[in-house]
Amino acid sequence: MEPTDAQVACFEAGIKFGSLYHQFAGTPVSPDSADSLTAAMEEAIENQPYCETVTVSVHEDVLREAIESAGADYTELTGRFLDVTMTIDYEDVVVETSMAMEDGYPLMQVETVRD
Amino acid sequence: MEPTDAQVACFEAGIKFGSLYHQFAGTPVSPDSADSLTAAMEEAIENQPYCETVTVSVHEDVLREAIESAGADYTELTGRFLDVTMTIDYEDVVVETSMAMEDGYPLMQVETVRD
Amino acid sequence: MEPTDAQVACFEAGIKFGSLYHQFAGTPVSPDSADSLTAAMEEAIENQPYCETVTVSVHEDVLREAIESAGADYTELTGRFLDVTMTIDYEDVVVETSMAMEDGYPLMQVETVRD
Amino acid sequence: MEPTDAQVACFEAGIKFGSLYHQFAGTPVSPDSADSLTAAMEEAIENQPYCETVTVSVHEDVLREAIESAGADYTELTGRFLDVTMTIDYEDVVVETSMAMEDGYPLMQVETVRD
Repeated sequence: MEPTDAQVACFEAGIKFGSLYHQFAGTPVSPDSADSLTAAMEEAIENQPYCETVTVSVHEDVLREAIESAGADYTELTGRFLDVTMTIDYEDVVVETSMAMEDGYPLMQVETVRD
Repeated sequence: MEPTDAQVACFEAGIKFGSLYHQFAGTPVSPDSADSLTAAMEEAIENQPYCETVTVSVHEDVLREAIESAGADYTELTGRFLDVTMTIDYEDVVVETSMAMEDGYPLMQVETVRD
Repeated sequence: MEPTDAQVACFEAGIKFGSLYHQFAGTPVSPDSADSLTAAMEEAIENQPYCETVTVSVHEDVLREAIESAGADYTELTGRFLDVTMTIDYEDVVVETSMAMEDGYPLMQVETVRD
Repeated sequence: MEPTDAQVACFEAGIKFGSLYHQFAGTPVSPDSADSLTAAMEEAIENQPYCETVTVSVHEDVLREAIESAGADYTELTGRFLDVTMTIDYEDVVVETSMAMEDGYPLMQVETVRD
């Protein structure tokens, strides 16, 4: 069957998560540069169609610990440093989504679908 | 409301498209290296959860023309060189998706949802 | 022969250019989001070893024209929108480098080497 | 001072390493998909100017251990899974370079410069 609007809205939400993650994973990041990176991630992905809002935050304590335990000044961005929420609006279906760590993995999920 | 299995299946499909596109866009590509790149794209994304099959093909004529018109030997991978299809299977919901050019843009879409 | 300090300094400069370009190429970008993206690019790459300063600017007119001629709201970041300069300091060898368009290509080059 | 040919050759070598690393870091990878990924990495970067040969290998034991210790089926490509060598030839200056783990970090270095 052809997809419903709510299914397309969820597909669009997934595109934004995959884009955000694979565009920016691997970026050199430190506590000092985390704010400019999260601002860029938010504004870049908000350009994409049907994307209302993106909020990205870095777990600064996890980031600091990863850098210090490696004896380094910075590390590469990966999912365990990130919390992300996004709101997608496609044809008046509003999808709330999030990415956060669960059992050691960055889990991307659909929180709610409102149509 | 919480998402249905079919909605989550579409979300998972979207994640794979966003991942594929933003992981590999920008890769140096020529007609000679297109096959190894498409093979890598398929196998990389098939690692992701619920991803049954990925097929990626490069429009070799479009690629050649882009390279020749620029007087170059290679170019950067972008959506206008690509055709992609994917099958996602989440909790027995099967989602067929595709990416192809439409009106000058790489359009990612859900073709069918079967549950 | 083993490399001289000046040669290693140039190698390090090249690493930063390749990193900057291939980390961020493909990012969705519009005139409104260009500033946050260039700030993130600068601060991310400045984390890397021996990297003193990075300046990135977007040719907003070229960006606007690319977006308008495509009838779109945003586009993907690529070299023709960018001007980049970097200063690398490795063992007191200072290398000044730049990336700018030349004959339709983003040309990365070493401007000066001072030791 | 303007750079020598040997310095430019080293700059070009650095560009290839930064490109290879930041283009492909974050790619989903498993023991089964490692070969297609390394083949694509080699052929993609060999497209770039002055790049004679690239060899990429994955430490399959390190990869397997990372995946198993996480209870997963795949992981994201990062430097600790990789060994890379490259030969750059710029104006008859031949630069041999490598990337391998040292003290827990992927160290990119110039091995020899022959002019």
